[in-house]
Amino acid sequence: MSSIQFDRIALIGIGLIGSSIAHDIKRLGLAKDVVISTRSTDTLKRAEELKLGDRYTPSSAEAVKDADLVIVSVPVGASESVAKDIAAHLKPGAIVTDVGSTKASVIAQMQPHMPSNVHFIPGHPLAGTEKSGPDAGFPGLFRGRWCIFTPVPGTDEAAIKTLRTFWEALGSRVDEMDPEHHDKVLAIVSHLPHLIAYNIVGTADDLETVTESEVIKYSASGFRDFTRLAASDPTMWRDVCLHNRDAILEMLSRFSEDLASLQRAIRWGDGDKIFELFTRTRAIRRSIVEAGQDVDVPDFGRHALDAKE
Amino acid sequence: MSSIQFDRIALIGIGLIGSSIAHDIKRLGLAKDVVISTRSTDTLKRAEELKLGDRYTPSSAEAVKDADLVIVSVPVGASESVAKDIAAHLKPGAIVTDVGSTKASVIAQMQPHMPSNVHFIPGHPLAGTEKSGPDAGFPGLFRGRWCIFTPVPGTDEAAIKTLRTFWEALGSRVDEMDPEHHDKVLAIVSHLPHLIAYNIVGTADDLETVTESEVIKYSASGFRDFTRLAASDPTMWRDVCLHNRDAILEMLSRFSEDLASLQRAIRWGDGDKIFELFTRTRAIRRSIVEAGQDVDVPDFGRHALDAKE
Repeated sequence: MSSIQFDRIALIGIGLIGSSIAHDIKRLGLAKDVVISTRSTDTLKRAEELKLGDRYTPSSAEAVKDADLVIVSVPVGASESVAKDIAAHLKPGAIVTDVGSTKASVIAQMQPHMPSNVHFIPGHPLAGTEKSGPDAGFPGLFRGRWCIFTPVPGTDEAAIKTLRTFWEALGSRVDEMDPEHHDKVLAIVSHLPHLIAYNIVGTADDLETVTESEVIKYSASGFRDFTRLAASDPTMWRDVCLHNRDAILEMLSRFSEDLASLQRAIRWGDGDKIFELFTRTRAIRRSIVEAGQDVDVPDFGRHALDAKE
Repeated sequence: MSSIQFDRIALIGIGLIGSSIAHDIKRLGLAKDVVISTRSTDTLKRAEELKLGDRYTPSSAEAVKDADLVIVSVPVGASESVAKDIAAHLKPGAIVTDVGSTKASVIAQMQPHMPSNVHFIPGHPLAGTEKSGPDAGFPGLFRGRWCIFTPVPGTDEAAIKTLRTFWEALGSRVDEMDPEHHDKVLAIVSHLPHLIAYNIVGTADDLETVTESEVIKYSASGFRDFTRLAASDPTMWRDVCLHNRDAILEMLSRFSEDLASLQRAIRWGDGDKIFELFTRTRAIRRSIVEAGQDVDVPDFGRHALDAKE
């Protein structure tokens, strides 16, 4: 792994992802100077208390001045506003990247505002937890996780390589794909799971025949798994829904069609069909564990943590 | 907590739940003699290798002889067959219980065969992992988890109290409710989550535009959570679907209605409606953690386990 150090990195947005990047930059010495900017004065103050950077400013225009690397970590719906604010203040030759969960929309919002003398490379680290805000970040969040770049054609290869080295220093593996394909892939592996989780938790909350306290008491029998995803940041996920609409609607429609078919199998007592589905899904889990993308312990290892209490 | 010891306990079925009970009986000295029975000779042999009991027999009729407590831990579809096999061999005054995830169906299958001189008390410990078989069991699985009894009216209170003491010795808390209500509660907190998980994993597996290897590589962004539930025992879950059909169909219908409403909000860009749902679901997660029904660490604590590797 190549070592790398920037003279100045600007972090625009300092939530879970931004603050985790900040921790790793400090830990690994990836910048001489880290400037942090966020619109919320409370969040900015908290970032300073946590010593996440070297300087702090509510102005993103101020923050990007002389920065060699600018990382925008805001809800995707705020991308255009950030791009407009920083465009005139970017250092020539700077790399500008983001961490947004939708890519076609971020490119449409940011690319038109980017000066031709900076390298805009859209990115998406596939990492996170259900927590949000500057206190939620921690060193090592990106270790072993993928980061997907969706550069527009003609992007400078040396700049891509530099950004790749940065993410690899954080322990990530980097892939490149076109933004439309990224948005389809993420719609199924991330956006649909979150939507389904939010939806089932909402359904359980609305029932008349089963009380909320029963749902909570007995949640260890399966339901609690969904509540983790459904505790994710509402602003971020609202923006994802609004900004990856077509791919999400396509995946939702496939999901609903399959669910209707399963519902019919249950209604008519088609045990063989149910058994066939329930068997082949096991293999996917095994592959994920083998690929190092989940821990190989029962129940995500929660029992060990329970037992420690 | 009262201490308790049975002269003989018979365990019919020795999968994840049966073997976890066996570990706890041994650890806590809850029986002088433990007899294990399962129809599969391979599983029976494995139970013996693991030293889960004192004696082993493929005949459930043989196993229940002189047993004071009989615990049936088989897929719910096998309940009637077990009831028929053991009925004539039960010791007068014995307590017969089960661990099935559906209760009305288990009662309908077993109760008619039970002699009037035994105490049949249907039960359901809300605990488990995605693993199955005798190797999957471990001591302490039931610690902090609920166990629900659904006794038929007129059941001997002393027998209920004895069984309650047994589960409390394993660290469980015991609730009683009527079987129909149990089946509705479990349909939303357990059966629907499993079905949805199986379904979304199936949908992802069937896509043409996103490859299976992409789904696996990028699963850490949400999808992997669902694969855990979707790796659960197919026979057990097929039987749950077939034996709690009406309650499951009711919950599925509510879920689908809500999902259609969310889909419409996404299609028409109704950000406020999406935000409202995504906000109120957060509160449920907090309540579950406060109720001690999930661990209070981000991402189920998986990161700590990842980092150890």
